[in-house]
Amino acid sequence: MEKHKVIEIVNRVRETKPLIHNMTNIVVANFTANGLLALGASPVMASYEGEVADMAKIAGGLLLNIGTIHQQELDAMIIAGKSANVHQVPVVFDPVGIGATPYRTIASEKILQEVNVSIIRGNLAEISQLIGEQGEIKGVDGGEVYGNAIEITRRAAEHLRAVVIATGKDDIISDGTRTFVVHNGHPILTKVTGTGCLLSSVVAAFAAVERDFVQAAVAALIFYGVVAEVAAEKTVANGTGSFQIEFLNQLSNVSAKEIEQYGSFEQL
Amino acid sequence: MEKHKVIEIVNRVRETKPLIHNMTNIVVANFTANGLLALGASPVMASYEGEVADMAKIAGGLLLNIGTIHQQELDAMIIAGKSANVHQVPVVFDPVGIGATPYRTIASEKILQEVNVSIIRGNLAEISQLIGEQGEIKGVDGGEVYGNAIEITRRAAEHLRAVVIATGKDDIISDGTRTFVVHNGHPILTKVTGTGCLLSSVVAAFAAVERDFVQAAVAALIFYGVVAEVAAEKTVANGTGSFQIEFLNQLSNVSAKEIEQYGSFEQL
Amino acid sequence: MEKHKVIEIVNRVRETKPLIHNMTNIVVANFTANGLLALGASPVMASYEGEVADMAKIAGGLLLNIGTIHQQELDAMIIAGKSANVHQVPVVFDPVGIGATPYRTIASEKILQEVNVSIIRGNLAEISQLIGEQGEIKGVDGGEVYGNAIEITRRAAEHLRAVVIATGKDDIISDGTRTFVVHNGHPILTKVTGTGCLLSSVVAAFAAVERDFVQAAVAALIFYGVVAEVAAEKTVANGTGSFQIEFLNQLSNVSAKEIEQYGSFEQL
Repeated sequence: MEKHKVIEIVNRVRETKPLIHNMTNIVVANFTANGLLALGASPVMASYEGEVADMAKIAGGLLLNIGTIHQQELDAMIIAGKSANVHQVPVVFDPVGIGATPYRTIASEKILQEVNVSIIRGNLAEISQLIGEQGEIKGVDGGEVYGNAIEITRRAAEHLRAVVIATGKDDIISDGTRTFVVHNGHPILTKVTGTGCLLSSVVAAFAAVERDFVQAAVAALIFYGVVAEVAAEKTVANGTGSFQIEFLNQLSNVSAKEIEQYGSFEQL
Repeated sequence: MEKHKVIEIVNRVRETKPLIHNMTNIVVANFTANGLLALGASPVMASYEGEVADMAKIAGGLLLNIGTIHQQELDAMIIAGKSANVHQVPVVFDPVGIGATPYRTIASEKILQEVNVSIIRGNLAEISQLIGEQGEIKGVDGGEVYGNAIEITRRAAEHLRAVVIATGKDDIISDGTRTFVVHNGHPILTKVTGTGCLLSSVVAAFAAVERDFVQAAVAALIFYGVVAEVAAEKTVANGTGSFQIEFLNQLSNVSAKEIEQYGSFEQL
Repeated sequence: MEKHKVIEIVNRVRETKPLIHNMTNIVVANFTANGLLALGASPVMASYEGEVADMAKIAGGLLLNIGTIHQQELDAMIIAGKSANVHQVPVVFDPVGIGATPYRTIASEKILQEVNVSIIRGNLAEISQLIGEQGEIKGVDGGEVYGNAIEITRRAAEHLRAVVIATGKDDIISDGTRTFVVHNGHPILTKVTGTGCLLSSVVAAFAAVERDFVQAAVAALIFYGVVAEVAAEKTVANGTGSFQIEFLNQLSNVSAKEIEQYGSFEQL
């Protein structure tokens, strides 16, 4: 995969403005919508069981995020996911905080059983939990994971038959066969709520325009990481409030030239 | 209607700080509350059927927005709307994304049947859908509408017996008899989530202090458009994040002089 | 209590990053999470009855906020509160808008009956309502209260057997025996939604690391007030949007030196 491919996919998102149906948590709904708009995509949120099948059907991508999941929303996610599957709409799953409570594990298993998920995005601790690896999760902001990160991601992709993205200091993307590492990003991302959640929605937007989901995911992570670096360069000295706003600015502004210049990744 | 009337209504909102009861979607609740506070109004959100009648009763205006509607909230909206009607509290209805799914159409029809709505605010595509005109809606951010925009708005006002506001490049306000066009605003508004939703809440705040709802609506749209222009002038080169923040600033700061200078509208 | 104690508690929050379980309203969830992250704490939101007991158990503090309460969430709050009580997790209660509707009064009474609340934080009007004092509440942003503010707070603490914080121009903290007044803060706080709600979550973070809840509360209020003053100094001329962002910045940036310099409080 070459950088020009990354740029090409970014441009395709900006030009085609895919509609992304986000079933996400109440904390990040606004930031997700503004982030997708800034990127050039069209966000929609709907979580009522009586309309999600219809919404997922017309979307370019469906995002399922369990950050503030409850039983009715879980049921609605299954309905939306099945509709997306029937209509070949890619589904991205973000198992926020899995392992923090038994219910999140049950909810995640239910989704993975009932819905054909194309891409899974979590931090390394969450990905580990998904395949029953030992790890420690503190709330929903990560934690320490023991073991080989690349191996865990690759194995998760194999077991779950999906493209798996494990984010952290470096980001790992694998479909079980092809594995990439993306070096872009900035630590301040962990101090703004919803940056992981928005990333999952951005991945859905990239998957809406690129059916090779490994390439879509790698392109999304490089793009997102470069956006973070450019925004952090301008604001990290001010604080997380300023970064959050500049991050939205740069989702629109980051150019092909900056992706070319700063993009840093490798295929293993 | 003269500009001094617009300014007078803006001042009345700022002085009387009307309480606006917003039953709105999870995406825009924060932006709506901050926007109303910046304007000088007092926001309250409540959507539980067990308290909405009591809240609507003490409010200066009630806003019903179906952006993330579900059955329980719809039931609560009807209860709140009926309470508002009994207590002569004006009701503003925002049919977000109507037509995107059958459920949104059903929910909108239910609200319009059960509640006496004073003002309806949507983009032109949404207003068209409300009266069964052909149009194309993509998600919740508008789309193309064929036909005569002014004629559609006027007809919607007649059919629905309400003041109808159809927003777009130009904004049209009609009660079926009097029709105005407001030229203010800025395209960047479409890149920040909830700017349409907040506008509907701002209209409710203006309706709380001016019982000629056409004048209230025209004043709200001129004011809001000027706020957007002043904020965009300062931030459009930076991006949508910076605009969003400056827009909140200018909701407080825009002066009578700026409304006088930039306000642009006409009665047809 | 000395200022070095305030600074010591602030540092302890920043170093230990306590996990705060927030059951709060849809308006402020994002601002609360970002505020806690900026402060150095770890936020989590969960409100489904099937997981809240598990989440509260692993948290350093539990925050219950009734800003957009409904019956299912109330039931879940009771479950979470009881779990917190069993596991010695301090519970902070924020009775947003109590008195605005009968349901909020009923919900508050239910919480106080069923859960052992460590700290209650409201504006003076809300605290008055809690103990049946006459006051006038307009929406959720305060109002006028007649009577002796210090006496009301002290009496509320006695009656409710909790540390009570009544915020306003000056903030009063009392456990019925020890009573403090904090003079820090800035009026612009009342023009940004969720600053009171976030304060309650910040109090929970301080209570997570300091088991003398009066000292935890006093430290949180001094810190929060100094943050507001520093942020307002930089942004009040621009507006509430800019303040909101700078406030998040300063939650991270405010230093021991600034707390030492600006902190202003007294024990009565």
